[in-house]
Amino acid sequence: MRKILVIGIGTGNPEHMTVQAINALNRADVIFIPTKGAQKSDLAEIRREIVGRYSTRPGQRSIEFSLPKRNAADPSYVRGVDDWHAAISAIYSRLFAEELQADGTGAFLVWGDPMLYDSTIRILERVRLAGDIAFEIEVFPGITSIQALCATHRIPLNLVGKPVEITTGRRLVETFPARSESAIVMLDGEQAFAKIDDPEAEIFWGAYLGTPDEIAISGRLKDVADEILRKRAEARARHGWIMDIYLMRKGADFDDE
Amino acid sequence: MRKILVIGIGTGNPEHMTVQAINALNRADVIFIPTKGAQKSDLAEIRREIVGRYSTRPGQRSIEFSLPKRNAADPSYVRGVDDWHAAISAIYSRLFAEELQADGTGAFLVWGDPMLYDSTIRILERVRLAGDIAFEIEVFPGITSIQALCATHRIPLNLVGKPVEITTGRRLVETFPARSESAIVMLDGEQAFAKIDDPEAEIFWGAYLGTPDEIAISGRLKDVADEILRKRAEARARHGWIMDIYLMRKGADFDDE
Repeated sequence: MRKILVIGIGTGNPEHMTVQAINALNRADVIFIPTKGAQKSDLAEIRREIVGRYSTRPGQRSIEFSLPKRNAADPSYVRGVDDWHAAISAIYSRLFAEELQADGTGAFLVWGDPMLYDSTIRILERVRLAGDIAFEIEVFPGITSIQALCATHRIPLNLVGKPVEITTGRRLVETFPARSESAIVMLDGEQAFAKIDDPEAEIFWGAYLGTPDEIAISGRLKDVADEILRKRAEARARHGWIMDIYLMRKGADFDDE
Repeated sequence: MRKILVIGIGTGNPEHMTVQAINALNRADVIFIPTKGAQKSDLAEIRREIVGRYSTRPGQRSIEFSLPKRNAADPSYVRGVDDWHAAISAIYSRLFAEELQADGTGAFLVWGDPMLYDSTIRILERVRLAGDIAFEIEVFPGITSIQALCATHRIPLNLVGKPVEITTGRRLVETFPARSESAIVMLDGEQAFAKIDDPEAEIFWGAYLGTPDEIAISGRLKDVADEILRKRAEARARHGWIMDIYLMRKGADFDDE
């Protein structure tokens, strides 16, 4: 049966690769690399670099393919994502049939870790459920931007014994600070932190973490929010895309007893 | 100035080490390895194995030292932890002064990732604040048990666009399912999942993840809770310790619109 390896590659530093991920990379006959748009093309370049640096398998091929874009104009977010996943599923199914032998092994190199705000596993399950092509999945973890953020700022993610919520910009105001004193925000297209009005809130922000373009800013939200907004806008204009993440925090270790 | 490297080593599989972590390991003159108790001694063995496998630095020394235990009998949890951290700080301070040259580099190999429910960074900041010895800290991320859990079960952590709460057993009933449809539980000494009475709840459980002793069970909570309790108790008796983690989940992708 075909095997599909879903390999986390970390957040842009090729040295985020684990030994396990490197070994998995070298089991693959074919590496599938999506390309499209400014962000996708920078990310494709990092994938090519990782293959160039770590692949030692003779005859391994890299197949680049175009990923469709989600129809952001669809008034139903769910339907927009569903249609998008369906389109990607069809591409995967065709790629596996055309590019892999019946007992061949393919690999996807997933930014960060495949478990976190990534749909590769979800879409592969969809391909499998469709039943046109049989394969097994194996998953290999990779360093996430949450971890890169905390390493750069040299901080623990959680306060002692307290919870942390991982959420999206759209949902931040529901969460912080009332529901969780520590909130990690990923996928924030609207800079939701700027809407938080709390004099005690702290922010630990980072963009392009793990890459040579890394930017990190931390401090009281009220003191640094403007600086983050400015540097973020500048960097985004310069690169044509941005990938950023932040931790919102209020309170301190041991302040709940 | 002295440098202290805090290096995440993953969850027991030596191949969880990143290339970055291996390079950091090889910058250290001294590796500090805590030893104590059944669990600590198994964990110390994995650290020794990692050093044996990846260290290529001539003259690098490993220093093993005894860690005190937290006084669980202290009626104040906060004071118990505070006293414990103070005792560890004093040990670190002495180790750095005695074992590292004034420009030497030491390293701690932290299970999982130093950012997540680990106090190494916190205690190092405490040593630094005490002011008896000057050093800089660098942090290197490692694969967490959350990631190992999701890789083993081949699942995404989050439902599409939805939040995830990382919490402790003690707090699970506050969180799940009312506040968060996805809750990761770490540090659960009381098997809090068994107190959740929800016919739709699913659980993805794992113990000793990443090691040859790995156990993984998933399904509807009501169908598998007893099996998890039984296997957990057996494994704990056999090993003398257990490290486990689980994801509680209710709902599905796209069910909120």
